[in-house]
Amino acid sequence: MFEAAKVGRSVSKQDFKAQRDELRTQLLEAQRELTESRIPVIVIVAGVEAAGKGEVVNRLNEWLDTRGMQTFAFWDQSDEENERPRYWRFWRTLPARGEIAILFGGWYLAPIEHRFAGHCDDAALDAELARIVDFERALTQDGNLVVKFWFHLSEPDQKARLKELSRDDRSRWKMLPKKSKFSEQYQLFEYIAERVIRQTDRGIAPWYLIEAEDKRYRDLTVGKTLLQAIRARLKQPLPIEPPATADPLELPESTSAQITLLDQLDLSQRLERDEYKTLLKQYQREVNDLAWRAYNQKRSIVLVFEGADAGGKGGAIRRITSAVDARLYRTIPIAAPTDEEKAHHYLWRFWRHLPRAGHMIIYDRSWYGRVLVERVEGFASETEWRRAYSEINEFEEQLVENGAVLLKFWLQVSEDEQLRRFQDREQTPYKQYKITDEDWRNREKWPLYKLAVNEMVARTSTEYAPWTLVEGDDKPFARIKVLRTLCERLRTALDNSAAPVPGSGITRCGYQTTQEAT
Amino acid sequence: MFEAAKVGRSVSKQDFKAQRDELRTQLLEAQRELTESRIPVIVIVAGVEAAGKGEVVNRLNEWLDTRGMQTFAFWDQSDEENERPRYWRFWRTLPARGEIAILFGGWYLAPIEHRFAGHCDDAALDAELARIVDFERALTQDGNLVVKFWFHLSEPDQKARLKELSRDDRSRWKMLPKKSKFSEQYQLFEYIAERVIRQTDRGIAPWYLIEAEDKRYRDLTVGKTLLQAIRARLKQPLPIEPPATADPLELPESTSAQITLLDQLDLSQRLERDEYKTLLKQYQREVNDLAWRAYNQKRSIVLVFEGADAGGKGGAIRRITSAVDARLYRTIPIAAPTDEEKAHHYLWRFWRHLPRAGHMIIYDRSWYGRVLVERVEGFASETEWRRAYSEINEFEEQLVENGAVLLKFWLQVSEDEQLRRFQDREQTPYKQYKITDEDWRNREKWPLYKLAVNEMVARTSTEYAPWTLVEGDDKPFARIKVLRTLCERLRTALDNSAAPVPGSGITRCGYQTTQEAT
Repeated sequence: MFEAAKVGRSVSKQDFKAQRDELRTQLLEAQRELTESRIPVIVIVAGVEAAGKGEVVNRLNEWLDTRGMQTFAFWDQSDEENERPRYWRFWRTLPARGEIAILFGGWYLAPIEHRFAGHCDDAALDAELARIVDFERALTQDGNLVVKFWFHLSEPDQKARLKELSRDDRSRWKMLPKKSKFSEQYQLFEYIAERVIRQTDRGIAPWYLIEAEDKRYRDLTVGKTLLQAIRARLKQPLPIEPPATADPLELPESTSAQITLLDQLDLSQRLERDEYKTLLKQYQREVNDLAWRAYNQKRSIVLVFEGADAGGKGGAIRRITSAVDARLYRTIPIAAPTDEEKAHHYLWRFWRHLPRAGHMIIYDRSWYGRVLVERVEGFASETEWRRAYSEINEFEEQLVENGAVLLKFWLQVSEDEQLRRFQDREQTPYKQYKITDEDWRNREKWPLYKLAVNEMVARTSTEYAPWTLVEGDDKPFARIKVLRTLCERLRTALDNSAAPVPGSGITRCGYQTTQEAT
Repeated sequence: MFEAAKVGRSVSKQDFKAQRDELRTQLLEAQRELTESRIPVIVIVAGVEAAGKGEVVNRLNEWLDTRGMQTFAFWDQSDEENERPRYWRFWRTLPARGEIAILFGGWYLAPIEHRFAGHCDDAALDAELARIVDFERALTQDGNLVVKFWFHLSEPDQKARLKELSRDDRSRWKMLPKKSKFSEQYQLFEYIAERVIRQTDRGIAPWYLIEAEDKRYRDLTVGKTLLQAIRARLKQPLPIEPPATADPLELPESTSAQITLLDQLDLSQRLERDEYKTLLKQYQREVNDLAWRAYNQKRSIVLVFEGADAGGKGGAIRRITSAVDARLYRTIPIAAPTDEEKAHHYLWRFWRHLPRAGHMIIYDRSWYGRVLVERVEGFASETEWRRAYSEINEFEEQLVENGAVLLKFWLQVSEDEQLRRFQDREQTPYKQYKITDEDWRNREKWPLYKLAVNEMVARTSTEYAPWTLVEGDDKPFARIKVLRTLCERLRTALDNSAAPVPGSGITRCGYQTTQEAT
């Protein structure tokens, strides 16, 4: 693969000067158009040691307008990063629409390092690379331009460059810990690099191999390639989306007679007041205890509450929170996104507020808005909400891999009971703020919501993050079902804290890297 | 002081129920008005152990609408927090306009703990309390409502409550490390608490002492007090601002004949091309070396560049960044604030992006916009930009206390030279993006800018963060002056890394708390 980057291309000083100013003018022009088109750009700078990745980035900082451009290196991980799913640190660096992020190594660094150090085998590396492909697809489908550079040096050239650098105090290379010195096993590194590039070189996010021996050739080629990639992206304002494919799970939207999961719920289930009081006390004690145990074991608890309007989400949530120490939980009601949030992938706002390990976080509505209200109201296009299912599954898998216990509740009420509650809200002073015209309008879309819920549950109820459907006509019954389910899941999860990381069961390369590297 | 909170007030179950619903309705109504008026609210919950602070917060979460309300506890500090000025963790939790933040202990916890543990004396405690008063003043002047609750229990009542809690697994108290048990030295704790309350009980941010023996009385009183405070704030849409006082530094704005610091610069200073090349190479090598040393010593470098339009900021910055490893520095060009940023104090956006220890961060324009462009263009009111001087000094002091080396450069050019550069920019393709109509308009306000700069330098050039005025008509001269100044400051600062924390020289209570507490 690297043969093409070993032909010894070079550019004379004179040629470099002649081409530089023109290139710079064009890059600035392209950058301005990017900003206007609100296209986010991710540039990944990777490659062999001593290829001059830092020099290239300095060059880009010189040629481009630094407004709206940020550079990120991923050295030692902070404990805040360690206590969240691994990709949290990357989501933190994603550019807003119209901005550019230059990432040293990006999400490629950890898997390469781990494989190089022998912490995982090729199969685990491949599993992680598959995740990367999914991640980059999600980014490009969301409009990002992803440009990946791999800088290559032949073994003799690298040796010579390192020798030169070792005489120079100004080199980062000298400061790296021994274990990160890829150059000492050039063959192994090349083997891994080739595997990584081959598996992640997709049309939507291609790798560009750059011969790094001649610095002028290297920098000019990077500039020209970037310019070309930006121009191509500008001509194609929307990412190519595959047509939605029909599959067995798909439901016709036109019918309201469709039988859904929700129709099979027995909403007549009830709980007597005395029994309710006894069970409430019992489960609240247990939830309190389990929340402390989770804190001590550094396991996060993530609860998602979705449900029909007036389905009883708030009441169920309060029965949990009133039992838990106020310093341990956080309720996140999902409101309209801010402009910073709108300028990113729709999952960005949820990544952004992920708690540190050991805390309970309760989402009052959640990322499922994408496949519920945004789908029904047409705020998201069909391709957008369709691809959201797998994006959500991937997101939740990462949460669970990180040790979170994730529970998702759908609270369902009958149309009659909802009507009764709406009327009650209008009549009770301190409940009035809960009812708006929108609630009445949503009621008319009941059949559409039912179909959306049905598909959501079918597509996102996974072994590691199952949905619990809650019969909500009787509030005591619903609250106890929520509490009991929560206690049961936590009990099981926390007892097995010594067990291997849950999730899909696939071992992936790249976890818990704490060493420093380029 | 606490006598008033020891009179044994109580509320019967019946009375509580009778008052609760009405209070709740009123609180919700007040909260809605707060949101509409875009007033941010900070509620601090502090007091003796076992007073039920967690219960009170749970109660507020039950009574209020949790949308737009967040609770924060300040337990163990993360390394990301440790590597930034101490108040970074508080700035992270400040509510946006129209939202509510409930803080356990808030900025009071660390100084109380430190004084209690004997890590500092009363004088150091007082110094920290003075900082708190400044901080809370800045918040209230920016529109925040700050409500501080102190929950009190007499020693026998506390002992009884702790005994009760110790029989109960559900108590946070049992999990606290021994050292944090304030209750074991009740007298000392009361002494410190009284000092803290006395010195920070200001009209703009008063303390409310709440007798915590009877839980119903406690919760009702908190609810009513909060309601009262919100209502009072709603009636007074703008914070009271003292009239701007004339002082020796003040300059008449009407005159353009005023002699300023800038007039005293010798703009004719020049550097020959050969000398420039030699010095540039020499200082760039040194900057590279010093940046690595700073990284290894975990000292941040913060550079602020302000200057006339076309004053050469960009060129000077590039002469630094091209010498430093791209992984070590970040350039932050200050653009228009986002809506999240506009919803906070104007310094919030700068706190937000503070780097972790050991990195170089370069501000291309900065928080000084408040006293420059915002002053001259009238974007900030006179009281706003006037109080910005001390807010900025306080901010910079915290940066320096945290170990940052802070340098501020003002790049000045003559009117003639500026004109020449404007014309050059219009004629050079890749420089055209740098020149806008606004630049031409700003030029007409030259005398006003000169006065603003003069006052800025006079009021914010401190021993720990001095301004360097740079004669910018000759670019080589200016660039070398910037590089030389940077090298000199870094050399001195890094040599003295073992010296005591720089800054105002005042020892303050509350540093480097890592222990857990309420």
